[in-house]
Amino acid sequence: MRNKVYIVGMGPGREEMMTKEALNVLNQADVIVGYPLYLKLLGERYQGKELLSTPMRHEEERCRICFEEAEKGKRVALVCSGDAGIYGMASLMYEIGKEYPEIELLVIAGITAASSGAAVLGAPLNHDFCVISLSDLLTPWDKIEKRLRAAAEGDFVIVIYNPSSHKRKDYLKRACEILLHTIEGERVCGYVENIGREGTKMGISTLKELKNKEVNMFTTVFIGNSESEIIRGKLVTRRGYHVEKQK
Amino acid sequence: MRNKVYIVGMGPGREEMMTKEALNVLNQADVIVGYPLYLKLLGERYQGKELLSTPMRHEEERCRICFEEAEKGKRVALVCSGDAGIYGMASLMYEIGKEYPEIELLVIAGITAASSGAAVLGAPLNHDFCVISLSDLLTPWDKIEKRLRAAAEGDFVIVIYNPSSHKRKDYLKRACEILLHTIEGERVCGYVENIGREGTKMGISTLKELKNKEVNMFTTVFIGNSESEIIRGKLVTRRGYHVEKQK
Repeated sequence: MRNKVYIVGMGPGREEMMTKEALNVLNQADVIVGYPLYLKLLGERYQGKELLSTPMRHEEERCRICFEEAEKGKRVALVCSGDAGIYGMASLMYEIGKEYPEIELLVIAGITAASSGAAVLGAPLNHDFCVISLSDLLTPWDKIEKRLRAAAEGDFVIVIYNPSSHKRKDYLKRACEILLHTIEGERVCGYVENIGREGTKMGISTLKELKNKEVNMFTTVFIGNSESEIIRGKLVTRRGYHVEKQK
Repeated sequence: MRNKVYIVGMGPGREEMMTKEALNVLNQADVIVGYPLYLKLLGERYQGKELLSTPMRHEEERCRICFEEAEKGKRVALVCSGDAGIYGMASLMYEIGKEYPEIELLVIAGITAASSGAAVLGAPLNHDFCVISLSDLLTPWDKIEKRLRAAAEGDFVIVIYNPSSHKRKDYLKRACEILLHTIEGERVCGYVENIGREGTKMGISTLKELKNKEVNMFTTVFIGNSESEIIRGKLVTRRGYHVEKQK
């Protein structure tokens, strides 16, 4: 049997939001590799295992550690927050994996912030949607702008990942300004901070208000589509089922 | 404490792909409500509980059953495949819930087919993406076309839900024709059938080939973006991390 590396989505952080499959993989692993914060989120329960990490921006090195440990015959799990395949490490593992063809790669899906944040806000993603990251570390800003415009023109619900960071404090404002060319200022929006962790906070606002909202890097932002509405204080987008209006 | 209905995402079907939270909610429920197929997917393990279902197209009635059972003081879980908030029952529950303000609603996120299908195919969603359903039961086809065009113009990876049904055998072909106005025929694509169930099948093709591919209603289709590629037989979209080319 070939040696394997499991690339595991941890979901938002709380163990209960991991799948049974992901928990089984971590339980059976000899080595768990991850960004230090994620290893910390896993808590005390994996202290008996070998925990290896590299700092931010050292993702390539982190991948190589996985392959090298797997070559030694160890059972390796690489953990990522959310879903490992959505802005996670899965694609980099495949790229670097070209050099390690004898090691098999398996992605274990996890709950991404679009899903977990939507559950907190109500049901904003019940129809077609886009997910866009505002991080321009690895993507040119004009490409991000183009996608925001296309998403608005397609009347998609829009989920924004990485809406802010220390160096990009005004990015959400810039994104809202672009969206406001197409979308009315009263469009309903929502945001969730620290999904599935201590101190989860949600808020509902209009797009106009969102433009001036300061959010942190642990926030996921949702822009409704033309059919989204606020029901019982939650952000809801109809799937299209038409319920007769109540008298 | 208010009576509650939990709206639970089951993920693709296998119990191991449910979150621990979802499994706990089902274990503690008195009544589990769902579409008959989903109750069947839950298997034998919940036989001790009251299992209630309504046929397809009777979604509104299914929601009302949940509220009525909760009014009796029972612990109710409504199950949906994938994520209950993504083309699931969550938004309809909020709409009908206007009539039952005393019942609290809680959405428990699940793994949607975009995540679980991506894990099977490799790492196609590692950058910005759109999710579009081709079902025109509840959405006019011209709106679907508009979204396909916008998604192609934004260079999003595109995930297609409900690509086909008995009555809509040529919808994927029609969708591909629209995409081919903007996207080259050689663009890499993938599809997964019966994700997380028995008989999971995946395939890789070009967009041109996909146009003539017959898929069934249990298939999820992925159209790569301009940076997607095939690595080790898998569909991979770079996050943007640039790995130096190998000699």
